[in-house]
Amino acid sequence: MPNLRIPGPTPVPSEVAQAGTAEMINHRGPEFAVLLERITDRAKRVYQTDDFLAVLSASGTGGMEAAVSNHISPGDHVLVVTVGVFGERFTQLVQAYGGEPTELSFEYGTAADANRVDKALAADPDIRAVLFTHNETSTGVANVQLKEIAEAAHGRDKLIIVDAISSLSSLPVPVDEYDLDVVVSGSQKGWMVPPGIAFVSVSDRAWEAAERCTTPRFYFDLKRAKESQETGQTPWTPAVSVLFQLDHALDMMFEEGLEQIYDRHRRLARRVRDGVRALGLDLFAAEGVESDTVTAIKVPEGIEARALLSTAREQFDTVFAGGQRTLNGKIFRFGHLGYVTDEHVDDGLKALESTLKQLGRG
Amino acid sequence: MPNLRIPGPTPVPSEVAQAGTAEMINHRGPEFAVLLERITDRAKRVYQTDDFLAVLSASGTGGMEAAVSNHISPGDHVLVVTVGVFGERFTQLVQAYGGEPTELSFEYGTAADANRVDKALAADPDIRAVLFTHNETSTGVANVQLKEIAEAAHGRDKLIIVDAISSLSSLPVPVDEYDLDVVVSGSQKGWMVPPGIAFVSVSDRAWEAAERCTTPRFYFDLKRAKESQETGQTPWTPAVSVLFQLDHALDMMFEEGLEQIYDRHRRLARRVRDGVRALGLDLFAAEGVESDTVTAIKVPEGIEARALLSTAREQFDTVFAGGQRTLNGKIFRFGHLGYVTDEHVDDGLKALESTLKQLGRG
Repeated sequence: MPNLRIPGPTPVPSEVAQAGTAEMINHRGPEFAVLLERITDRAKRVYQTDDFLAVLSASGTGGMEAAVSNHISPGDHVLVVTVGVFGERFTQLVQAYGGEPTELSFEYGTAADANRVDKALAADPDIRAVLFTHNETSTGVANVQLKEIAEAAHGRDKLIIVDAISSLSSLPVPVDEYDLDVVVSGSQKGWMVPPGIAFVSVSDRAWEAAERCTTPRFYFDLKRAKESQETGQTPWTPAVSVLFQLDHALDMMFEEGLEQIYDRHRRLARRVRDGVRALGLDLFAAEGVESDTVTAIKVPEGIEARALLSTAREQFDTVFAGGQRTLNGKIFRFGHLGYVTDEHVDDGLKALESTLKQLGRG
Repeated sequence: MPNLRIPGPTPVPSEVAQAGTAEMINHRGPEFAVLLERITDRAKRVYQTDDFLAVLSASGTGGMEAAVSNHISPGDHVLVVTVGVFGERFTQLVQAYGGEPTELSFEYGTAADANRVDKALAADPDIRAVLFTHNETSTGVANVQLKEIAEAAHGRDKLIIVDAISSLSSLPVPVDEYDLDVVVSGSQKGWMVPPGIAFVSVSDRAWEAAERCTTPRFYFDLKRAKESQETGQTPWTPAVSVLFQLDHALDMMFEEGLEQIYDRHRRLARRVRDGVRALGLDLFAAEGVESDTVTAIKVPEGIEARALLSTAREQFDTVFAGGQRTLNGKIFRFGHLGYVTDEHVDDGLKALESTLKQLGRG
């Protein structure tokens, strides 16, 4: 059984996996309505919100598309705050749908700075929305100024759209307290569920934008999702087995307790960082903005990233993730979110140590 | 264990369900590439095509959206041939994306006529594509002139886009032989898998249209899907557990044999129709165009559809589907596709008989 130490899909507890084998049900029937309500009620508690929460059958990127296509019209100016690949995905999405993004990019490995966001907003009063990645999986960086950036956006009357795919459910994202307008998450991350379900929360301010929004949308139309969910259904046939699993995973999450989950993630993240440093390796993220769900590690000199990943996988049964795009070959990533324990982390560190030895280092 | 006799999601064989509990894998790793290739190779055999086949993480409607948003540009004239709710969904999709649909509607319960399709195409030379539902789940009608309609479309140099969601994998849809350009199917139908995966095949002619197509798209961009699938990946995190299940279901399908699957569906459909008639009920579909995957039955006089459905479900453990939209209250539907045996059908008929008795009829 390999130790899957990537930042998603994350390992699924066996009882969650088994929950997906329950007999199929009619997605237009009363059992489904009960299931959907039980899921959305609890997922909203994880979101810390009273806003509507759409449950979409898609990957997290589908949720990001819904966030863009329901709120950004062709020609709309938006500010995309990027610190890595997933921030850039927002830019691509906005461009695909005819919006006009200004990218405020921060160097890979660093976090976004709210003051610079505010300045960028001041520079273009036509900007309607700020799009923002809370936890950048590609660089292992947490945008710790989430609250300040939301305040900067609202201070200038902009919508704030947050990709919290790899943070929300592992780390606190208090949607209502921070007044976040649109927040995306995905089942295959901290929720401990296979991929297939994306969540999107929608504030009143966002609904107003959605009413005005002229971008075409159908499968990801959030208004349809809301109207359907109010009747205990989804507009299109949902990924029922993944919802069965999510239902069970939510049981486990509330059994553990949200605060306990957040503590566990913070603690295990430190354990990973300490262990990595003890092996003489360098973290990619700047100090103080390291993600608590995924650690990006610089590939040490004299070792090829590809050899590191394949040796870990083939000889030490541990799957790390490589670097994406320009970071390919330069970093590798150690995931520690969702269903993760001290043992998973320690085994991952041991495998890393053995891999380095095997490759002649350490 | 209720007898789920709706036209999808269909019952999942327990070994298929169990296959979904396998340990999660890295969707960017070598195991996934092998899995994806094994799935697409065999799914293409079910499609009877050498065309590219996109494997999308979405419901069938997501596949329909991909079929529209990749091939129909704003302002494009298209002919939508409708015989029920799912044909109309194509119209809504085309409208949502700015195309200009002409609907050629046939009365609910009847099938489309290729001669009238040809006439409609003659009437508007600007039409670029014909959109068409092969098997209309909402009315229990099979559009038996699939081949003739495809010929009419190609005779006038139009693209033919087919929703075969509830037919392909249960009934023969020879994509290459009929030269169908874009064909959509979905995992929760004849494939015996939970919902979550949609398939879209794309002919060379369709790729040419896609190159010209100006409709915005991202999550459902088929070119991205193709580029990714050629490297053994999907562009976005796929519904891995549903793919594990699909992999196993394909084993079962090829063990049974495609011809045997088609025969079984034809035979069981006759058995349902004969049994329904023997109960003194009338079929909704006209004679000769009844679907071999779902039977629509007129709600007999003196009985309320809602009572029929709830009595069958609550007292006789059998789930039928109601009528949709204007057919709500007028018909109910008996699904017989995918993992379905003589026993399922006979039990369904018995439950129907008992329900009618219970409600004072029969």
